[in-house]
Order: sequence, then structure tokens, then C-alpha cells
Amino acid sequence: MCGIVGYIGNKEAYPILIKGLKRLEYRGYDSAGIALIDGNMTIFKKAGKVNDLETIVDPDKIAATIGIGHTRWATHGEPNDRNAHPHLSNSGDLAIIHNGIIENYSSIKEELTKRGYKFHSDTDTEVLVNLIEEVQKTEKTTLDNAVRIALNEVVGAYAIVILNLKNPDQLVAARKGSPLVIGIGDDEFYIASDASPIIEYTKNVVYLDDQEYAVINRDGNYSIRTLGNVEKSHEIQKLEFSLELIEKGGFEHFMLKEIYEQPKAIEDSLRGRMSASQGWIKLGGLNEYINRIDNADRFIITACGTSWHSSLIGEYLIEDLARIPVEVEYASEFRYRNPIIKETDVVIAISQSGETADTLAAIDLAKDRQALIYGICNVIGSSIARASHAGSYTHAGPEIGVASTKAFSTQISIITLIALQIAVVKGTIPTSKFREILYELENISSKIEETLALDAQIKEIAAIYKDATNFLYLGRGYNFPVALEGALKLKEISYIHAEGYPAAEMKHGPIALIDENMPVVFLATNKSAYDKIVSNVQEVKARKGRIIAVVHKGDTQIRALADHIIEVPETEEILSPLITIVPLQLLAYHIAIMRGCNVDQPRNLAKSVTVE
Amino acid sequence: MCGIVGYIGNKEAYPILIKGLKRLEYRGYDSAGIALIDGNMTIFKKAGKVNDLETIVDPDKIAATIGIGHTRWATHGEPNDRNAHPHLSNSGDLAIIHNGIIENYSSIKEELTKRGYKFHSDTDTEVLVNLIEEVQKTEKTTLDNAVRIALNEVVGAYAIVILNLKNPDQLVAARKGSPLVIGIGDDEFYIASDASPIIEYTKNVVYLDDQEYAVINRDGNYSIRTLGNVEKSHEIQKLEFSLELIEKGGFEHFMLKEIYEQPKAIEDSLRGRMSASQGWIKLGGLNEYINRIDNADRFIITACGTSWHSSLIGEYLIEDLARIPVEVEYASEFRYRNPIIKETDVVIAISQSGETADTLAAIDLAKDRQALIYGICNVIGSSIARASHAGSYTHAGPEIGVASTKAFSTQISIITLIALQIAVVKGTIPTSKFREILYELENISSKIEETLALDAQIKEIAAIYKDATNFLYLGRGYNFPVALEGALKLKEISYIHAEGYPAAEMKHGPIALIDENMPVVFLATNKSAYDKIVSNVQEVKARKGRIIAVVHKGDTQIRALADHIIEVPETEEILSPLITIVPLQLLAYHIAIMRGCNVDQPRNLAKSVTVE
Repeated sequence: MCGIVGYIGNKEAYPILIKGLKRLEYRGYDSAGIALIDGNMTIFKKAGKVNDLETIVDPDKIAATIGIGHTRWATHGEPNDRNAHPHLSNSGDLAIIHNGIIENYSSIKEELTKRGYKFHSDTDTEVLVNLIEEVQKTEKTTLDNAVRIALNEVVGAYAIVILNLKNPDQLVAARKGSPLVIGIGDDEFYIASDASPIIEYTKNVVYLDDQEYAVINRDGNYSIRTLGNVEKSHEIQKLEFSLELIEKGGFEHFMLKEIYEQPKAIEDSLRGRMSASQGWIKLGGLNEYINRIDNADRFIITACGTSWHSSLIGEYLIEDLARIPVEVEYASEFRYRNPIIKETDVVIAISQSGETADTLAAIDLAKDRQALIYGICNVIGSSIARASHAGSYTHAGPEIGVASTKAFSTQISIITLIALQIAVVKGTIPTSKFREILYELENISSKIEETLALDAQIKEIAAIYKDATNFLYLGRGYNFPVALEGALKLKEISYIHAEGYPAAEMKHGPIALIDENMPVVFLATNKSAYDKIVSNVQEVKARKGRIIAVVHKGDTQIRALADHIIEVPETEEILSPLITIVPLQLLAYHIAIMRGCNVDQPRNLAKSVTVE
Repeated sequence: MCGIVGYIGNKEAYPILIKGLKRLEYRGYDSAGIALIDGNMTIFKKAGKVNDLETIVDPDKIAATIGIGHTRWATHGEPNDRNAHPHLSNSGDLAIIHNGIIENYSSIKEELTKRGYKFHSDTDTEVLVNLIEEVQKTEKTTLDNAVRIALNEVVGAYAIVILNLKNPDQLVAARKGSPLVIGIGDDEFYIASDASPIIEYTKNVVYLDDQEYAVINRDGNYSIRTLGNVEKSHEIQKLEFSLELIEKGGFEHFMLKEIYEQPKAIEDSLRGRMSASQGWIKLGGLNEYINRIDNADRFIITACGTSWHSSLIGEYLIEDLARIPVEVEYASEFRYRNPIIKETDVVIAISQSGETADTLAAIDLAKDRQALIYGICNVIGSSIARASHAGSYTHAGPEIGVASTKAFSTQISIITLIALQIAVVKGTIPTSKFREILYELENISSKIEETLALDAQIKEIAAIYKDATNFLYLGRGYNFPVALEGALKLKEISYIHAEGYPAAEMKHGPIALIDENMPVVFLATNKSAYDKIVSNVQEVKARKGRIIAVVHKGDTQIRALADHIIEVPETEEILSPLITIVPLQLLAYHIAIMRGCNVDQPRNLAKSVTVE
């Protein structure tokens, strides 16, 4: 959340910054702003999206070759023009962009106010830039040294980049808890929250680590030091993805593109990691630690949001197949409650971005307690991936839509492999069943294709319920987390209050909400407990709720009761979430579009939650 | 769910049945009905409440001294007159009342239809009574034997009572999965789903066990046999509660009475089980198994609805204090997913009624796997209490309001004692801290009284938000399950779609729902992570959400941000749910009243969910 981009070199900075902000806009779109130095410091900033920012830019003032840009997800203060970044120091010399939260900003603000500083916004960021200015003044030191000293006084998380009017040939950047990547071109540098604004200019990048700051000079040199003032030298890495992956490729929205990419994304997540005909699974990350994993007393899976839902599916998978107890924890709860973690525990952390602040903090805690950390991330080289002992990338390709889709399904395919690999080593699954599931996994993408072909039918259902104010999603077993995820999709992009529940829990409260205006989505593909779901459908029908049911092809019992039937191909019950989530993603997408919502950039949200 | 009552004796049955139905109405109020035999079989039945039933009763036709009555929570078929119980067999000789679900009713119905039976309702119940008639006819046997044979063909759960026009001196009753208690008077018998319709006539009762049926004769004899046809003799038990406990005692609603009873209920739950000055805890049920419990590898707590929320608090308590891993499971999910249960696990089952079908089935499963079962129930002698190896009653007294209040807080006080007792034995808590918490526990009721005194202020807040269509409830740590429970209360009785979340999870989706129309209730009494909650409040405020915050007395930071502040007394963080739930119960109550809802009998719901 919050996107940061900076440029220093020989080209005009402005077009690079604007294009970069558009690529980073998934990280926040409450406001956007740019600062440029071309003799003077020029700042354009505005509440709203990057498009809105462009309308106020004066084309005569954008010739600079150094600049910074920011797209904001608001934490402190309303998302208005005044609170938009960049923020200036009182002298007007320093301009800062910031992603994160300064937790002790109010005491620092008080102190600076006493010393005569004035503040023009409600942000913690403006406090930080003035603290840096004050340190520079009182210590009579260089900007980068002042940044180092100031950051040592600060509690919180940040990625920052600073522009200094007094030294227009230098950018200073630092990070703790929020990502920063430096792109190295020919006598030019890029800096950004992720590689997407950089990829079309250079493939050579350096990732800043936590508690490090970088000084980047126009002369082609850069240096990285820790906040403890120790010089560091990071290897230059090569970006591997191509530009097409972060463009819409003919689809109207990234989200729709990513829904349709799921068959391929799942294939990519499985490629080279299994063979049904030869009967093996090889997860690179797992093999090295296989003994420790096989002998684990317990798995703890920690995550947030959609990844928390795939964690719940992981619990069902690992317990079911490998017969090892699994505890799923919200990362934000886990880290603050002195959790029980033993050396014999394996902690799996799941995060699309690999930067989720709470999840990262949770694994730091678990590492301190000597647990083995297994990271499942999508973004290569991300903080969680680097902080884990072992792990597997989901290889879903860049996910730009804020509502996660293909990241979710590839997380599930990875956990399925993990559960199966342990199960086969431990002998908790018959070899014949193991092979059957592998064959089914190899085949799952074609069944997802079949499910995607239901799009037109799902769009018709969406048209009927687009004006609903509430939705319930109900499922049992493997379909219970899918119900949660389906509800979350609708909530995120259509702003309809949707809630998921285990189907049988409905009677313990949520059924009070049901009347003839309440659409209830049932996931009823379970072979086990099918009769129980039929009873639950009966109970909703008796209260005149409107029933949309996802069932297996050829279902008759629920067809006779439901208002709408979505028939999906049958598969192994343990793989069913990979199929049943698809109609729910499409339903949410179409409803949101019909309500005129911006599905790729839903209000208030941002991808990659790097604040707590 | 569904209330059953029957009478046979010398008095007029009708007034006893009607009064009994009113006492049982908390179990369901979709429709009500009565059958009487006085020469002829007379049936009155009607959709709606017991009051509605009374309006259609012909006063000239109620002289009978034998009869049955039913108040329905609909499972199969709409809640209309036609589907109301009692249901007659095709001959008109048998009338049945039924609580539960016959899962294989459709195949039986098909078979009976082939044999010429006609059905006049959509219920599974009418199928059952005709099956019994068919068995009686083909086997040429007594009614009770036909019942036994028929029930052996049936899959599902039930409590039934049958009236036979051909034998007006006998009631036949049976149970599996739904409770039945027989009251034994002087040459008269009562039969009911619980003791509340019986208590004013006799204190002598016999509880039927699962898979048993009873034949009750007007001559003063009764017999109980298993469905396997083995005679049983059950000890007569004495009811211990008094009539006042099941009346409103000056309060407008049972729910409000029960909210206000919480200080006393908690004292009752603690009485004789702890002493702060002497520094001990003695839970009768725990001592016998203390070794097995201390050496438990893991606790599994299983429950539904509100009890599931107290289970989550139990997880925090036991892990925090006793340092034993705890897994909380929805009973309905647990039982169907081949869970990992070891002999060294302790399974705690929590249920107010002690009859919750899914929870009961979950402990049956855990017993089969050799786990120790610890039951926490409110209703004495209930099925879960009897099926557990050990346990503690909550002693909250009868809870009549469908939305659980005092049962929740006493469940928490019991789990607190369990966690503390284990912690002190295991030495995972310093003695000084143990004593501090005990003193605080002894004092907690007076702090709840203080919190109840905020009622008028909470009512004012309720008036402002009564027309809201959605609510979010957010909390961290011990207050996270309280947020879930607060949302459930509002949902249950006001039909406003309210949802609870861990405060930090909001950013991963629900924040999309926030605009100036969205009230957000923050539980912000945490000492740990207080700053993080402040950040979360900031994030909601930046999106213009309306903030109602429950804080400690004297809070300044959140006061400056929130629209409304509810200041509650400070306590040990681990005990805070006992305090913070109270304003949420009152808020839900007042909003529901202002919306004209029936808080004691919210639509669609029923207390004591004895179907799956």
C-alpha cells in the first residue's frame, strides 16, 4: 500500500514517474503527487487517481531529470489534496514520499512544534521530513546522515525517498518494513516499491533490505548502508518477468484477465514439481527440510485476507492427507498474543506480495522461537520469501487486480503439493489414491476452463442480484473457506455486505438475516455431507431466501430447490476449491461492473498491505 | 428447536399444553399446534406464535385429559398452517409431534406413496407418522412396537410424541438426538423438550436417553425400552430450579433480564469453585482428570454459534495462561472432516442447552477416538453433560432469550477457571499473578454492574444508529471474539447485517464497505497493541466511517478520534471480554427494540439447535 517511484538520470523524469505511478496504482489510489527539481522544487499533488493528477500538471514545468512520485493509501488523515504526498519540509528544501506508518509521530510532532515547526497536513510523513530537516540543521551534517539519525529515532514502518533542492544530483532512500527496489540503468537510476515501473527500462535491480538506506547519485554511483552505518554491497539481480504480464492483454480489467489466467497460473505453479505418470512430487523448498517437516508436531499457517482463506484450505488438506495437526492464525492476532510455538513446529506463511506487514512480523516472531519457516509467496525476492528458511513461489505471474484471484488458486495448488508430498512420505495416503489425485491435478486446469465457460450464465445471475444489499455464502468442509473467499470478493469490489459461514452455523444466528431479499450462495459440490447441505438449503428455502447453488453437473436434489444452479465439473473433493471459487469470482466481478464499481481499484483498499 | 409438550392424567390437558408451549416458545415460533383426544381427535394448528394459535381454539372442544402440543422451527417446508404440527396419519388415528429431521424421508415417502398414502404437507414428520401406521398395519402389532420398528428404518434426529385415537389412555414417545423429559406427578405424566413446562406441577423427572422410547399410561405406569427392545430403568431426578427463574421478573424482555443477571450469574458460576484470599481453584469436574488434563498435548474446543465465540476466548486463555496449544473447531465442520484427535487430546464441548446436535455428534466422534471429553453446559442433565467424561455446569440459570447473553459470560468464567487451574498446576503462571487474577475475578461482577449503568448512554447511541443497514465490529486479541459476538447479537435480534473482524484484518477487504453510512464499533480496551488499534481507528476515520469505541475510563487518544465513546472499567486484559461484551449486548438490545423487533423471539431462529 502506497506506491513510491523515483528517477534520476538524463531523461525527463516526469513521463517515467507518471507511468510508474500508474503501474503502482494498485497499491493505493487515495491521492497522487509528484515532486521535480529543475532549478526550483515543483510539486503537483491531488486527491484521487493518477489520472486526476495529470489534469493539474503544468506542461511547462516538467523538464526536470530528477523527481519522485507517490500514490497514496491513506492511514493518517483524510485522503485530500493537503494530505497527498510529496510533503515539503518547513524550509522548502526537502520533499519526501513515504509508504508506511510512523507510530511515534505525535510525540515528535509536539517536540518539533515547540521548536517552531509548522505543519500543513495531518500526516505522520510531514513530521518525518521536518525531523530530518531539524537533525540536519542541529547536527550540521549531510542529508543522508541526517536521514540515518532521524530514522533511528522513529518507531514504525517505512519506505521513503527524499529529494533535496540543495543537492539536485542525489536521491536518498530508506526502508524498514516496506519494499524498495533500485533499478540500475546506464548512468540513470530508478527506485520504486516494486519492479513494475522499472521493467521497461532495465532488468538490473538491487533490493534494499530492512533498516538500510541508499544514496543514489547522478554520476552513476550509489551506496547502501545500514541504519547502524555499516556499508553493504548487494548483488545485482535480473528481473525475469516481461512487460506483457503487467498489462491487460485485451481484457477490460486486470481482475478479469487474472481470473481467466487461472488455468495457466495453476499449470505454472505445478510445472516441474510433480508428475502423475511417474508418481512424484518435488517441491524444491521442501526437500531440503523434509525430515524436519515430516517430524513436525504441528503446522501453523499464518496469513491475512485472501491468503488466510487459502490457509484454511491448507488446514483441511494437511490434516486430511498428512494427518498432522494444523493451526491457522490471522497474522495480526498471532504476533501479539505470545503464541505457543515450538522448535518442532513448522510455520507456513502465505502472502501474494510477500510484503504483508503482519505476516512478516509473525514469521520474525516464529523464527525467534526456532520454528522452521516455509514461505509461500508470489512476488519473487519479496521480504517474506527472503525471510523464510524454505519456500515455494506460486508462479502465478504479477497480480495487479487488488482483489486476489489467481494468487489464491495457486496458493492452494502449492499447499496441495505440500500436503501430498508429506502424506506420501509418511504413508498416510495409499499410493493409488496419491496417483489418482496427481492425475486429477494435472487435469484440473481443463476443468477450470470448463467452469470459466459458464461466464455468460453467471453474468445473467449477476444481473438479477446486482442491487442486493447483502449476500450470504455457505459451504461445508473444503467449500467453507471458499464461501469466505467468495464473500470477500463481493465485499471488496462491489461494496455489498457479503458474509461467509459454514453452512451449518447459519442456524446459530445468520439465518435471522434471511428473507425474500437475501440471496444465499450455496457451495454444494461435496460428496460427503451432501444430505446435510440439502437440509441447510431446505432451511433457507423455508424462510424464502433466494438460493444460488454451485453444484456438480447432473445434480438433481438441489436443482429442485434452488432458484439458480451453476453446474461445475466434478473433481476430487480435496481439489474442489480450485473449481468452486471460479464462479464466485465471476459473480463478484459482474455484479461490481453492473454497479459501476472500479473492480481493479476498489475504494479504500490497496494491494500489498505493508502497514499493520 | 421445536418445542414438544404432552400430558396425560386427570386434569384438563389444554391449559397445561398452552402454558407449556409458551415456555417452550424460545425453541421455535414458526407455527404452533395442539392435538387432544376426547372421544374424537381434535387438532388446532396455525402458522405464527402460540398467541395466534389460541385465537382459533374452540373453547367447547378442549375438555380432554390427554393431548400433545408443538411449537415449530421450520426445517422442511414453509412455516404455514399446513406444515404445522401435529400431523395426522392417513387413517386419522395417529397424531404426531416431532422435533428433528428425518433425512431419508424422501425415499420413504416415495415407497408410501406407491402403497397409496396421501400427503397433505411438505414435512418429513407426516412421512414418519404414516410409516408408523403402515408398520402397525402390516405387522399387526401394538403402536409402541410399530414405533420401535419404524424408527429403526429412519435416518435422522428426532424427539416425537404420538397420540392414538384407538388408545386414549396412552402416550408413546421416543428420542434420538433431541431431548425429552418425562415429569412424574400423582397419577399423571408430563412430557416435554425441557423441564420448563413441567416445573410448576412436579419436580420429579426422568430423562429419556438417545435411542429410547417410552410408553406412558394413564393408570400411572410407564416403561422405557431401547430401540433394540431392551427394557431400561432410569433413576428419577429432582428438578432444582424454581419457577421465578423462567419468568421475566419485571423486565420487559427475557434478554434484558438476562443481560442484567450477568453479575449474579458469574458469581454463581464461580461460587465454591475458587477463593482469592486462600488462593485456590477447585473445579469438581476437573480434579478427577487433572493428570490427564495437565499432560494433554492439545485442547480441542468445539461448539456452535455464541459458544463458538466463547471457545475462541478459551483458546486465548488456555494458550496464554497454561501454554497448551488449543484448536477451536466449529462442531459441524469438525465432525465431518475426519479430524486429528489423539488419546492425549482433551476435547472441550461448550453448549448452553447441552443439546446442540452438531456439538453432541462431535463429542461422540472424539470419544470414539479415546479423547477425554469435558463438557461446559448450562442445562443440568442435558445430553452433552451426560455424554462427557467430566465437566462443569455454568450455573447461569435458565436462559430463555434466544440471543445468548449470560450463558456466554458464564462460559467464559468457567474457561478462565480451567485455564488458571491448569496454569497453576503446571507452573506457567507466577503465584502472585494467579492471586491477582483471582481477586480481580471476585471483583468482576461489580465492574459489570458499573458497565450496566451505562445503559442510558448506550440507548442514546442506539437511537442514532438504529436505521443503519450494516455494522462492523473490530477488536484485537481477547476483544476479537467479543467483536464477533457483538456482531452476532445485533444480527440475531435486529436483522442488521453486522460482521466482526480482527481489527487488523479490516484492511484486507472489509474496509471497502466503509463510507459515511457505516458504523464501526471498536473494542479498544487492550493495553497491549493499543497503538495498533489507534492506527486502525485512524484508517476508518480517514474513510469517514462512524466510530463507536469501547475504551477504558480515562482514554484520551481514541476519544479524540471517535464519534462516540463508551468508557468501561479497567480490568485484567484476560478478563476484559466479561466487561466489553456488556455494552454490545445492550446496544443490540436497544437497536432491536427501536426497530420494533421481537428480541426474545427473533425471526427464523430458535434456541437449542437440535438439528444439524
